[in-house]
Amino acid sequence: MELDVDRSPFHRLIGLELVQGDPGLIELRLPWRDELGRADGSDWFHGGVVSALIDIAGDYAIASRVGRAVPTIDLRVDYLRPARRGELRAVARAVKVGRTVGVADVELRDAGGALVAIGRCAYSTAG
Amino acid sequence: MELDVDRSPFHRLIGLELVQGDPGLIELRLPWRDELGRADGSDWFHGGVVSALIDIAGDYAIASRVGRAVPTIDLRVDYLRPARRGELRAVARAVKVGRTVGVADVELRDAGGALVAIGRCAYSTAG
Amino acid sequence: MELDVDRSPFHRLIGLELVQGDPGLIELRLPWRDELGRADGSDWFHGGVVSALIDIAGDYAIASRVGRAVPTIDLRVDYLRPARRGELRAVARAVKVGRTVGVADVELRDAGGALVAIGRCAYSTAG
Amino acid sequence: MELDVDRSPFHRLIGLELVQGDPGLIELRLPWRDELGRADGSDWFHGGVVSALIDIAGDYAIASRVGRAVPTIDLRVDYLRPARRGELRAVARAVKVGRTVGVADVELRDAGGALVAIGRCAYSTAG
Repeated sequence: MELDVDRSPFHRLIGLELVQGDPGLIELRLPWRDELGRADGSDWFHGGVVSALIDIAGDYAIASRVGRAVPTIDLRVDYLRPARRGELRAVARAVKVGRTVGVADVELRDAGGALVAIGRCAYSTAG
Repeated sequence: MELDVDRSPFHRLIGLELVQGDPGLIELRLPWRDELGRADGSDWFHGGVVSALIDIAGDYAIASRVGRAVPTIDLRVDYLRPARRGELRAVARAVKVGRTVGVADVELRDAGGALVAIGRCAYSTAG
Repeated sequence: MELDVDRSPFHRLIGLELVQGDPGLIELRLPWRDELGRADGSDWFHGGVVSALIDIAGDYAIASRVGRAVPTIDLRVDYLRPARRGELRAVARAVKVGRTVGVADVELRDAGGALVAIGRCAYSTAG
Repeated sequence: MELDVDRSPFHRLIGLELVQGDPGLIELRLPWRDELGRADGSDWFHGGVVSALIDIAGDYAIASRVGRAVPTIDLRVDYLRPARRGELRAVARAVKVGRTVGVADVELRDAGGALVAIGRCAYSTAG
């Protein structure tokens, strides 16, 4: 399965980049853009960007194992510290790939390597 | 506290609008734009837009009660059905506003009124 | 489908009672027992009792719609205030019953009617 | 801070044991008892036992860092496979210990070492 992050208008809107894609293990990168800021003059990424990045990374981690797109059942994000400008890197790992449900864990780090958020998401793998 | 959704570059990027803002009860609206699509040619909103909208609405529901911005502790989104083009409306309601934690419930509906996602979020209310 | 809460050793251990069971809407009751306390001398129910009650109620709400037992995919519980002795009542409602996933919302109240915890759970409905 | 799991009536009811307790890293053990079964004749632990064990382990992981009991803000459990009789071991690790919120990750394994459930919990660390 080819992971083409550019096929989504929303991915292009925020400037998402695929760093590495192996079955069950995905790394995405999101460089800072002023449009992604939380507030005017703030150098924090908006929380909505953080959760979107986690959902997308987790989805690819499961999709790369089952060979097709997988709808998100539910998404959970814990915000640990502000996500400062620079870039964000999301590493997602498939924890379970069952017949009906897949679960992925995602770690999101800032340019300095600090863990800014963690995510856990369930996806439907039922064909 | 004035709720000015336009003060955030990310809100302007996606085109977020405030419909109604009362203490503890917020309604947001997000009209369809092609840039918010899940995939080229798809008429579904991207899941990252859905989760962002839920986080923002819940945040305002709590912030409007405590009178200042509140950082998100964690966010949970259940996707019930595809969010089709038209518009999305998020209604957020404060369930609890404690001294250290606030909890909000959010319902997201499409243009036809169908419930497409539900969210529950915890926010830090500790000054 | 008959809902027989007594067929589970764990339900008998904690003293769970079915108050009402309609398809998609379940009410359970758990009277106080000293063995369910958080700490010696405390008059609070242990948090593990609260989460168990929420999972069980949500499960029945979905099972009563699909006509068979449903495995829990994931469980989320928000603790709003201490659950004081007396009794706990859990009301669970099916929010979605799809072909592969069901989602239930649960409200847990104490003897005085105060909302002490809310839960949201996903269950596998794939036969 | 002394971690005395026996001071809770509910812990004694289910037979919880502390294996190891270091600041921010806790291991608990729960041996099989017929009373903890999902259904008569089943050799699976009840899901309510699994979620209770995860909440307790995560709580101790944070409490052992802040030096006092910490109320659970919210609990999330993903069930990966049935938890078969034998014993359950929960290893909890503090991911964040902030001024107002602590987050713990918990892995639950069966007697064979298989991962049966994972949990993530937020606790209030505000004095």
